[in-house]
Amino acid sequence: MRRMTARPANAHQARLLRLLRDGGPNSRAQLGDQVDLSRSKLAVEVDRLLETGLVVADGLAASRGGRRSHNIRLAPGMRFLGVDIGATSIDVAVTNAELEVLGHLNHPMDVREGPVAVFEQVLVMAAKLKVSGLAEEFDGAGIGVPGPVRFPEGVPVAPPIMPGWDGFPVREALSQELGCPVMVDNDVNLMAMGEQHAGVARSVDDFLCVKIGTGIGCGIVVGGDVYRGTTGSAGDIGHIQAVPEGRACACGNKGCLEAYFSGAALARDAEEAARSGASPELAGRLETSGRLTAVDVAAAAAAGDTAALDLIRAGGNHVGQVIAGLVSFFNPGLVVIGGGVTGLGHTLLASIRTQVYKQSLPLATGNLPIVLGELGPAAGVTGAARLISDHLFSPV
Amino acid sequence: MRRMTARPANAHQARLLRLLRDGGPNSRAQLGDQVDLSRSKLAVEVDRLLETGLVVADGLAASRGGRRSHNIRLAPGMRFLGVDIGATSIDVAVTNAELEVLGHLNHPMDVREGPVAVFEQVLVMAAKLKVSGLAEEFDGAGIGVPGPVRFPEGVPVAPPIMPGWDGFPVREALSQELGCPVMVDNDVNLMAMGEQHAGVARSVDDFLCVKIGTGIGCGIVVGGDVYRGTTGSAGDIGHIQAVPEGRACACGNKGCLEAYFSGAALARDAEEAARSGASPELAGRLETSGRLTAVDVAAAAAAGDTAALDLIRAGGNHVGQVIAGLVSFFNPGLVVIGGGVTGLGHTLLASIRTQVYKQSLPLATGNLPIVLGELGPAAGVTGAARLISDHLFSPV
Repeated sequence: MRRMTARPANAHQARLLRLLRDGGPNSRAQLGDQVDLSRSKLAVEVDRLLETGLVVADGLAASRGGRRSHNIRLAPGMRFLGVDIGATSIDVAVTNAELEVLGHLNHPMDVREGPVAVFEQVLVMAAKLKVSGLAEEFDGAGIGVPGPVRFPEGVPVAPPIMPGWDGFPVREALSQELGCPVMVDNDVNLMAMGEQHAGVARSVDDFLCVKIGTGIGCGIVVGGDVYRGTTGSAGDIGHIQAVPEGRACACGNKGCLEAYFSGAALARDAEEAARSGASPELAGRLETSGRLTAVDVAAAAAAGDTAALDLIRAGGNHVGQVIAGLVSFFNPGLVVIGGGVTGLGHTLLASIRTQVYKQSLPLATGNLPIVLGELGPAAGVTGAARLISDHLFSPV
Repeated sequence: MRRMTARPANAHQARLLRLLRDGGPNSRAQLGDQVDLSRSKLAVEVDRLLETGLVVADGLAASRGGRRSHNIRLAPGMRFLGVDIGATSIDVAVTNAELEVLGHLNHPMDVREGPVAVFEQVLVMAAKLKVSGLAEEFDGAGIGVPGPVRFPEGVPVAPPIMPGWDGFPVREALSQELGCPVMVDNDVNLMAMGEQHAGVARSVDDFLCVKIGTGIGCGIVVGGDVYRGTTGSAGDIGHIQAVPEGRACACGNKGCLEAYFSGAALARDAEEAARSGASPELAGRLETSGRLTAVDVAAAAAAGDTAALDLIRAGGNHVGQVIAGLVSFFNPGLVVIGGGVTGLGHTLLASIRTQVYKQSLPLATGNLPIVLGELGPAAGVTGAARLISDHLFSPV
């Protein structure tokens, strides 16, 4: 399988490629129903796409009366690389053209080791996926990083938890190393795109995807597209004030949401509960492993530890209070909660829901589902593949 | 002048009409530079628009070398009615096709008198504008109401400060009375559209327009278009929690922004300051007129009254704190402050700015202007005319 070099020549071809990506193989007749093209014009565009190799014929379609038409599908050898760089680990996956994850690797790594070390690791993981036979080459790669990104250039800007990354030309450097087109975005935006493509947000146009990991961020989808804001920092809700004159935050302000609830804050509070004697369960776990994470808090809560349950409820109240404000402001059709802390499960979700349904206006919450993400760690890499495919399936 | 009955036949014609509305009379050559049409196709579309009477020839354009082309412009007799129904007053204006306000009337009226009484008054005011010779007929009307609207149907939904309006078919009823197409929207969205068309937000794609009147609301513009949310309640920020466990609000919750700062809250706090002896200036004004409004607080502050200045600063702090969260979330390119309370001027603006620049992340505020609206009461009626013209200048 050689790498695809063709790109759609016009908006009709781009739309056909995206329909095949999102809906899978389809007949010409049914594609025709979905695009605003005459039968003859549709035939011209499909034939041109067949010539480029971006799509291939794929057996006969079910009859709709008259002559049976051939199914077409995206080239079966097309491969995208999805990379999701978190604060403490790296996910790398390979997908086919329909963005199905064919292989997925995870490696713990601190993003503070800097871009050179992190991308060396990414390249090692990408090479492993190739060796396993899942891809010969990559047709494109999407990369998520845990901080704001100047989107057109693919460069992180002033990322608070990523010292050493400010201004690093991620897109250019990775594109050179991988030998394929690369797009870069904030990790939270990619989680939103992943849940939109294959998860709980399918067919929802306007929604929020709140990622609670080491930090907290929010992907904003408006009319089906990610909204990134004027300087790429939209959705940076971790430093919204949750408690006036509250706890000191690493950003220099007081009472920020992240100072009260995030993977980092939860670990700190859990260790405090372990040491103070409030939680025997957490104390035991701290003695065993030397540190505590959200996973420990989830396990302690599942074992009925009151202090752990209280930590989850308090965190859910704080994040729920901020989300309540965002719901009043944005009136979304869905709120998705994702990220590492979702291991805290329904106790967390219940606290968040309570705050939102209590504080937001009934008109905004009447039909508002607040749910956990469906895809887990696959959301980010699927979104990354979606990002690069959106780019490649756009008119040149 | 007879009423326009034609509508653009396709997206190209719609775009040409909007360009002429927003930029005024123009030459075919310069219009051609702005639309993606070949010279011959452009000529066809312009000729068709001339045939409908929606546009007319308007003298010779400046030469760009070669044969001089004719300017074209929107029909000079085209008239839009812009209606802005506030909580305590009604603004009605007539505009030309370029949305310039030709005549503007204001009438104090309590929206709680209900839709029948309010629209009787609107019709009286519209008739006055006709009698004055500014319009023979209206080609369309835009209506703003101070509450959420189910936009496609033009029906207010569960409007907290508008008892008696829930479900009233504003669009249908007004369209019948006025004999022209009508569109209905929330008043805050129209203020945003007005400032975008002719005010401080010209050429800004993503911005927030915070209206502080009797209540508080926020117009959200994304990519040049108003974002209304899933059920039409987007921007309803008056009930975002400003103070945890704070003052009781009319909505039943505690600590809502509107309980701390809005025209109504300010009047209440000012009367309190007058009665308690904290403000001799406000006490004098209360004795004279029997009640206090934002206008009195502004005058007292201008006279150096400390209690009045404190009220403005405290209000600005509360609204600034909520806006700070929205700025972190939405990363807008501009924040416009409008509505009756803007009479409080730069003292208010300074408090809002202080909170936002202190609390939001530097990346979101680095190039963020926070400014007062430019159009005052003309913003709403201009936005109303823009709303109906957007509808009429859309392909049928």
